[in-house]
Amino acid sequence: MGVHQYFKSLSDLEKLVRCPGKFKYQEHNVASHSFKVTKIAQYLATVEECHGEKINWKLVYEKALNHDYPEIFTGDIKTPVKYASKELKHLFSEVEEEMTRKFVDTEFPEMYRDIYHERLKEGKDDTIEGKILSVADKIDLLYESFGEIQKRNPEPLFFEIYEMSLRTIIEFEEMHCVQDFLNNILPEMLQERFIPRSELKEITYAILKIKDTQ
Amino acid sequence: MGVHQYFKSLSDLEKLVRCPGKFKYQEHNVASHSFKVTKIAQYLATVEECHGEKINWKLVYEKALNHDYPEIFTGDIKTPVKYASKELKHLFSEVEEEMTRKFVDTEFPEMYRDIYHERLKEGKDDTIEGKILSVADKIDLLYESFGEIQKRNPEPLFFEIYEMSLRTIIEFEEMHCVQDFLNNILPEMLQERFIPRSELKEITYAILKIKDTQ
Amino acid sequence: MGVHQYFKSLSDLEKLVRCPGKFKYQEHNVASHSFKVTKIAQYLATVEECHGEKINWKLVYEKALNHDYPEIFTGDIKTPVKYASKELKHLFSEVEEEMTRKFVDTEFPEMYRDIYHERLKEGKDDTIEGKILSVADKIDLLYESFGEIQKRNPEPLFFEIYEMSLRTIIEFEEMHCVQDFLNNILPEMLQERFIPRSELKEITYAILKIKDTQ
Amino acid sequence: MGVHQYFKSLSDLEKLVRCPGKFKYQEHNVASHSFKVTKIAQYLATVEECHGEKINWKLVYEKALNHDYPEIFTGDIKTPVKYASKELKHLFSEVEEEMTRKFVDTEFPEMYRDIYHERLKEGKDDTIEGKILSVADKIDLLYESFGEIQKRNPEPLFFEIYEMSLRTIIEFEEMHCVQDFLNNILPEMLQERFIPRSELKEITYAILKIKDTQ
Amino acid sequence: MGVHQYFKSLSDLEKLVRCPGKFKYQEHNVASHSFKVTKIAQYLATVEECHGEKINWKLVYEKALNHDYPEIFTGDIKTPVKYASKELKHLFSEVEEEMTRKFVDTEFPEMYRDIYHERLKEGKDDTIEGKILSVADKIDLLYESFGEIQKRNPEPLFFEIYEMSLRTIIEFEEMHCVQDFLNNILPEMLQERFIPRSELKEITYAILKIKDTQ
Amino acid sequence: MGVHQYFKSLSDLEKLVRCPGKFKYQEHNVASHSFKVTKIAQYLATVEECHGEKINWKLVYEKALNHDYPEIFTGDIKTPVKYASKELKHLFSEVEEEMTRKFVDTEFPEMYRDIYHERLKEGKDDTIEGKILSVADKIDLLYESFGEIQKRNPEPLFFEIYEMSLRTIIEFEEMHCVQDFLNNILPEMLQERFIPRSELKEITYAILKIKDTQ
Repeated sequence: MGVHQYFKSLSDLEKLVRCPGKFKYQEHNVASHSFKVTKIAQYLATVEECHGEKINWKLVYEKALNHDYPEIFTGDIKTPVKYASKELKHLFSEVEEEMTRKFVDTEFPEMYRDIYHERLKEGKDDTIEGKILSVADKIDLLYESFGEIQKRNPEPLFFEIYEMSLRTIIEFEEMHCVQDFLNNILPEMLQERFIPRSELKEITYAILKIKDTQ
Repeated sequence: MGVHQYFKSLSDLEKLVRCPGKFKYQEHNVASHSFKVTKIAQYLATVEECHGEKINWKLVYEKALNHDYPEIFTGDIKTPVKYASKELKHLFSEVEEEMTRKFVDTEFPEMYRDIYHERLKEGKDDTIEGKILSVADKIDLLYESFGEIQKRNPEPLFFEIYEMSLRTIIEFEEMHCVQDFLNNILPEMLQERFIPRSELKEITYAILKIKDTQ
Repeated sequence: MGVHQYFKSLSDLEKLVRCPGKFKYQEHNVASHSFKVTKIAQYLATVEECHGEKINWKLVYEKALNHDYPEIFTGDIKTPVKYASKELKHLFSEVEEEMTRKFVDTEFPEMYRDIYHERLKEGKDDTIEGKILSVADKIDLLYESFGEIQKRNPEPLFFEIYEMSLRTIIEFEEMHCVQDFLNNILPEMLQERFIPRSELKEITYAILKIKDTQ
Repeated sequence: MGVHQYFKSLSDLEKLVRCPGKFKYQEHNVASHSFKVTKIAQYLATVEECHGEKINWKLVYEKALNHDYPEIFTGDIKTPVKYASKELKHLFSEVEEEMTRKFVDTEFPEMYRDIYHERLKEGKDDTIEGKILSVADKIDLLYESFGEIQKRNPEPLFFEIYEMSLRTIIEFEEMHCVQDFLNNILPEMLQERFIPRSELKEITYAILKIKDTQ
Repeated sequence: MGVHQYFKSLSDLEKLVRCPGKFKYQEHNVASHSFKVTKIAQYLATVEECHGEKINWKLVYEKALNHDYPEIFTGDIKTPVKYASKELKHLFSEVEEEMTRKFVDTEFPEMYRDIYHERLKEGKDDTIEGKILSVADKIDLLYESFGEIQKRNPEPLFFEIYEMSLRTIIEFEEMHCVQDFLNNILPEMLQERFIPRSELKEITYAILKIKDTQ
Repeated sequence: MGVHQYFKSLSDLEKLVRCPGKFKYQEHNVASHSFKVTKIAQYLATVEECHGEKINWKLVYEKALNHDYPEIFTGDIKTPVKYASKELKHLFSEVEEEMTRKFVDTEFPEMYRDIYHERLKEGKDDTIEGKILSVADKIDLLYESFGEIQKRNPEPLFFEIYEMSLRTIIEFEEMHCVQDFLNNILPEMLQERFIPRSELKEITYAILKIKDTQ
């Protein structure tokens, strides 16, 4: 019954945990994920612009910021279910859109409805801004799964997510920002140190200026 | 690739939080919920049997224990989505059954497959055991929502869940166990004390044997 | 040693809890807060634009998205400390800026450094976009403290934060978006229902179609 | 003063953490544990039945479901304390039984008391159903400790629990279900992959179709 | 096999949750509780000393700091179990002492063993320092239960704990520090404000300088 | 407005998480940390006394117990900020002292004020008790960071903290207790077993008395 419902709903995104039903060392919520995707999209669009592409910044931000908002209505549905059949996927998208539309019509004053209908639409289209969203969404997912792998999560799912995310990113490899990611950022990520116990001993004894005689 | 996958999957149910996307004072997971539903069904079936009904105990336990297991495959989908259209609901059930079937065929030795196909089926049917499951499931949901209301959760959703659960229970009011619940257990639940601050002061001063002169 | 450090740092914001050292029913992290502030700023800027003001959307989003990023370097310093003396506040701002500048110079390729120096600056200035950030930041703080008050947090601090946030918002009352907030959104927030126990009994018995004869 | 107290107490089992006083990557509560033990017992009894043994299914479920319920009265007492002396163990069992008996007599209607006295008794006896409970209880404990070891918990206790559980299971090695567990399920558990970092690099570069030249 | 085991065990006290098996808004661990008891004992002893009593400060601190350390060996046993019979209580104390003694003999160098045998003994004796420990322990328990009551925990147990703690404190009412607590600190605790919703509206509209005309 | 505010504030230390803004496997709060530092200081002072040094025990405990209490007023400020400039550090210390002084003057009865002004002062001075506090504080920090390294936290920060703590401890290497720590306790810590997967297999098969033929 008003924009208050919309503002209040933002807090529900903080209570939606990503990838439910699996043990994770570090949990992420949909609000934090949306923040990170928007920050990453900001960087990717910067790279594109510095390489001469024309960027509609308003659109970049709108797409990134709102891309998971409809999860408020649908909850977190596992990907294999969504994609089990074309028919189910289609029906599901229709329901999602219908629920979002109804929310905007119920809660927003008339003068802002068209704007929000537009904003809360699926944003991953073929425009450069839509492609930036697709890449940014997968980069954050790659980081989330890398975080679990690095912390030694034994669940194979995170490895599958890592692989699937990387494959999707590579589909956009003609983009400047994806080239930048693959050539500069990903190698750096893979060089992350892992401190083995042996090194701990060495450094300890180096500090102590004592030979490890064991 | 074996029953180990099945045993391991039980732990995933511990990581599936009920009613995601909403602030709750006390969170419940699907494994704990399944335990409580089975314990409640045990009581309800006891009431029925003591009133002369014939109970297939093996069935009571199988239905209660397994009723939410397929959420492992589908995740937690919000009710309004599931019921948005008959077509979607139907398609969705098909996908759920297909995934469960495939899991049993992949992980179980052949000699146990038929048994598990049967066990992991939708259990809420018109048998007395199926009806006991329907009631037990809603009683636990009623307790979960009552717990939030009693702790003063301001979110109206929990009140709606409370009401909806109670309405469903009443649909089975011809059952002995539902009569017992409505006549004996529910009134007790509603008499739960809530300790007001004024009482705290009174008792404190009574203990101190000092008149409260403020 | 590269943009990977920047991407990785976004996840640290998820581990920075807002208002540390106080019991809260619902905790919020800096990443989620930044997301909500950006969504609120988006709405506020929409209101301004629909009332004829000229909005630099790129700036609105940059300011909102990045406004708390430097907390990565400084941690969460209690407000009374920061504002204990003009001299301390000034020194403190200098240190914050210096650390941010050094981070950008160390981690970003040269071609993007000026852009990020600009982006990670203090954003609350006298431009309309700066004022929108000031208001959006305080609206989210108001919602955070209202959430605690509504859940009956006995700590007076949340009431003080509520009051202080509202006072700051009112300082911008000449803005269209603040008028909209005060006239339409805030009254709706204050009408949030709280379900008393007596009502619970009534509705229960209404559902049961039984007179409450106790 | 009624069955409501019994239903409400089920939720207390959700707040009893298993193995308190030790750091764990994943915590388990007594309600979830009871659910898993019952599911495992269901499988074990299925194996026995398929190998020609006669199973009292009602008993299997009753024993598994209720085996840790008395922890509501006693709390979680560390095993070495319980077993410190025969005399203490005996006295302790007496107190546990007395408390359970008193609870049933206070909260249950007379017609159900005998049934619940029977159900809440110690279930690990020499019947096939009692032995299935003993094995199922230890299999879940084995999985819990394996989960910690696999996640690299440095605490030796989990290794001791793993070893002790396995030793207990082997005491029942004449059972068909234990043979099935040792021959089919345990080997599968030990083959759980652990993804080493080197493999991560390989797969990443394989996806990228780039030779790892470092 | 050394003092490292002792230092490491301190962290186990951080994983021992107080009052397990009950929903609490704010959980406390045994390490934090021990800290608070020691700080409270420090204040109580200060009051006694300022009123002319002779205080052995070394003893005050030793008793408070170590009073719950043996819970590392025994876990958290519910009070009604411990006190079920004199015989059980006696046997139980013997086991606790034996385990503590064995730990000191195993982990500490010989020259410190007698000191630690003395330190880890039951500290609640009839000396002034022992009585200060008894009072300080109950004051912290009173604060823990008051915190739950103030946050509106509907569980009657916390009210019982509050009452029982207060009754124990009063048993020592001849002490200066208990007089100080009852006359000055407790009344202040009971005056803690609880901000009702009506007041929230009033202050909001006072800030807005708008009459509440609803 | 009284000592109740002081007692209540102790609970705020339980909500202050150490090292905010970084992923940790095990979180520690300031109250628990203070407890552990006091226990460690107790041991260190025992070593000193047994080696003939004169110890003021009252001072040892006061310093250790209160050393982080002022964080209640200032929050958790990251070390690099505090030490960014001598001027800032000085100003910051002044503000901290001023806030602590004001708190004591507001909340404590006059007769106890001087005592608490003294107690809540910075305790790390050149007395033997001050040096014991410096060492104990760093030993607990070493254990906290070792805990993360042992659990394989990939964040290099914990390694830096480990190294920095050890370096500070060594600065006091002329002390008997530091010699004891370096010669007896630290080597034991570094010998902590880490159970590799291969060993798990071996022991499993040893228990099973089966040769691992894979």
